[in-house]
Amino acid sequence: MVDISRGSALGTSGASELFQLLRDGRPRTRAELATVTGLARSTIATRVDSLMALGLVSPVGDALSTGGRPPSRFALNPSARVVLAADLGASHATLAVTDLSGTVLGELREAIDIASGPEAVLSWMVEAATTLLARIDRDHDELVAIGIGVPGPVEHSTGRPVNPPIMPGWDRFDVPGWVQQHLQVPVLVDNDVNIMALGERAFAWPNAEHLMFVKIATGIGSGVISSGRLQRGAQGIAGDIGHVQVARGVGIPCHCGNRGCLEALASGPAIARDLRKAGIDVATGSDVVDLVKRGNIEAIQAVRQAGRDIGEVLTTAVSLINPSVIAIGGSMARAGEHLIAGVREIVYTRSMPLATEHLAIVQSSAAENAAVLGASMLAIHHALSPEGIDALATPAR
Amino acid sequence: MVDISRGSALGTSGASELFQLLRDGRPRTRAELATVTGLARSTIATRVDSLMALGLVSPVGDALSTGGRPPSRFALNPSARVVLAADLGASHATLAVTDLSGTVLGELREAIDIASGPEAVLSWMVEAATTLLARIDRDHDELVAIGIGVPGPVEHSTGRPVNPPIMPGWDRFDVPGWVQQHLQVPVLVDNDVNIMALGERAFAWPNAEHLMFVKIATGIGSGVISSGRLQRGAQGIAGDIGHVQVARGVGIPCHCGNRGCLEALASGPAIARDLRKAGIDVATGSDVVDLVKRGNIEAIQAVRQAGRDIGEVLTTAVSLINPSVIAIGGSMARAGEHLIAGVREIVYTRSMPLATEHLAIVQSSAAENAAVLGASMLAIHHALSPEGIDALATPAR
Repeated sequence: MVDISRGSALGTSGASELFQLLRDGRPRTRAELATVTGLARSTIATRVDSLMALGLVSPVGDALSTGGRPPSRFALNPSARVVLAADLGASHATLAVTDLSGTVLGELREAIDIASGPEAVLSWMVEAATTLLARIDRDHDELVAIGIGVPGPVEHSTGRPVNPPIMPGWDRFDVPGWVQQHLQVPVLVDNDVNIMALGERAFAWPNAEHLMFVKIATGIGSGVISSGRLQRGAQGIAGDIGHVQVARGVGIPCHCGNRGCLEALASGPAIARDLRKAGIDVATGSDVVDLVKRGNIEAIQAVRQAGRDIGEVLTTAVSLINPSVIAIGGSMARAGEHLIAGVREIVYTRSMPLATEHLAIVQSSAAENAAVLGASMLAIHHALSPEGIDALATPAR
Repeated sequence: MVDISRGSALGTSGASELFQLLRDGRPRTRAELATVTGLARSTIATRVDSLMALGLVSPVGDALSTGGRPPSRFALNPSARVVLAADLGASHATLAVTDLSGTVLGELREAIDIASGPEAVLSWMVEAATTLLARIDRDHDELVAIGIGVPGPVEHSTGRPVNPPIMPGWDRFDVPGWVQQHLQVPVLVDNDVNIMALGERAFAWPNAEHLMFVKIATGIGSGVISSGRLQRGAQGIAGDIGHVQVARGVGIPCHCGNRGCLEALASGPAIARDLRKAGIDVATGSDVVDLVKRGNIEAIQAVRQAGRDIGEVLTTAVSLINPSVIAIGGSMARAGEHLIAGVREIVYTRSMPLATEHLAIVQSSAAENAAVLGASMLAIHHALSPEGIDALATPAR
């Protein structure tokens, strides 16, 4: 069994930077890697040697190199190994096998019921992974890590969901331990919004050190990347902005037991509820998006107001975190510019000019692929970290 | 000239963890250091060797070690070198020389006028540093780094203040370059609230990975430590919460040009202004604190209300950052429990229970020493980082 409990929780930012650098496929010298990561040259040399011994990094021909000297430039060999990425939602799951650059080699999407409990869902996942690996003609031995996103809070250091409201039976369930009975590789688990932030960054903003991903769907949450690292906070719930109170919310009850929460005003169900009160026939957030797309003025106004409410909370986030990118995703983001316009209206009105001068507030580019891409990143980051590489070099399987 | 532009901006969290570990003075083995930092053993070995060669780390006698083997346990030798720490305020400065554990060896406090410009203030600082070193009988050669806090935003990677409102003449001034003409060591500059966060953590919460320091004085700002690192954000203004709008602020003009900002309601001058409107004779925030200490009920109520306004903004911070500690400092914090009670009242009412279950909201313990201690930490962190040690090993003086 591979012990993943430490590495995933600790700061291995140097290793992550090394990986970020190599992930683009450009060959680099040891000296370049040392300069850009700020790691000691001896550290770089050791890391590159380990990666080469495992076939993860290959020397790249250099016409100027002489006789006995070691090859001077290296590039990631992304096809050397694969990772499994799973986005487990409330009612559907996406599973992908990607190479070490995050390129999807095979993918499947299926209806599941997260409420059927961890053993049912994870059994399906393990079987589907086998199917998927066979379909793309890769062996189980080539799998180096698994990243899983789930729709609830997760204690990241152990991979156990903690009091997840819509995941009955999953509370404190040892997801990595269970999966490792079938697939003996490190298993990283995180909540869906956190992995969406990782996926969005990898897909669209690889150089953004400070990025916030806001998911607006049945619930509202965010994933925060600061100084290039996903921030989880003391209890693992950093970014949980759905229950911040907003001005317009006075008195409106929220399912959390409090009143006036952002989620009680600006989530898909909340917008649908307000439109129903105005006599418009909508059942879900998805119906609202459809109405917006057909140009229904009430639906457009409601979505824009939701954007303003979200902007109220994001204004504080802009002051506190000072991100360069806020990406808006989740099913309600399909309402497009109307939602974003509301967010921008408030953030730009209320924030200090210096904080918004270079701030991009945009619709998610990775969109529905953000989560599975982020799960892949989570797995790759670990596989290429010092302890991931140690584990590969001395398999305890 | 020592190039400090890279290391200070980059993630050297492994190195910082190594330093954090050694700072307590406890001897540790290489294996222990590797386990706790998550750094590769080869990295630890290299780092420890460099530190030993410089006399910064010493082997500690181990009765069990045998013949030719290298000594197995190491401890920081805090008195090996010293750093200079400067807290430059609007109207006064504190200067200290500390050892490598942050223990103050000598200190002086003097009235200055930050508006007299960088050359006047920094000339004073350089002269005072010489006086201070002589007083404690340490040589210039023993000085390894300088940390400086200033009352305005700083581009941390270059150490240049950026549009600092109360520091005329300092905009984009090359503070490290100027100081290094006189003292040829790395110079780290940051804004005062950021270094107060570092100082508070070092003094009172060395194990807190997620800590927020809120300064309430003439202005309101905060320093945010997440995942053990000071977070500066994309423009270096992370934590700048003074101009977030609060509910009670509707229409109240702020000196920033906007309306309803937290600073326009809850800063020392704002509380004094409101009390004057109620017919109470106070000129400054300091007068308000004096009234509170004398039990004046109007002053107590005003301070408590300011605490509630601050709590409104901190509630969002609790959701976003999920800290384990919020320390309240700055001159208004001397009003004590009345201010903190207002903050707690709102944060505990409005936050999700999981976020506040283990959250401490407390008065700053480091108090007026927070800034100078933080400046010392900034300097020590750099001196003991890989590039700091490289610079010491191959001086370009």
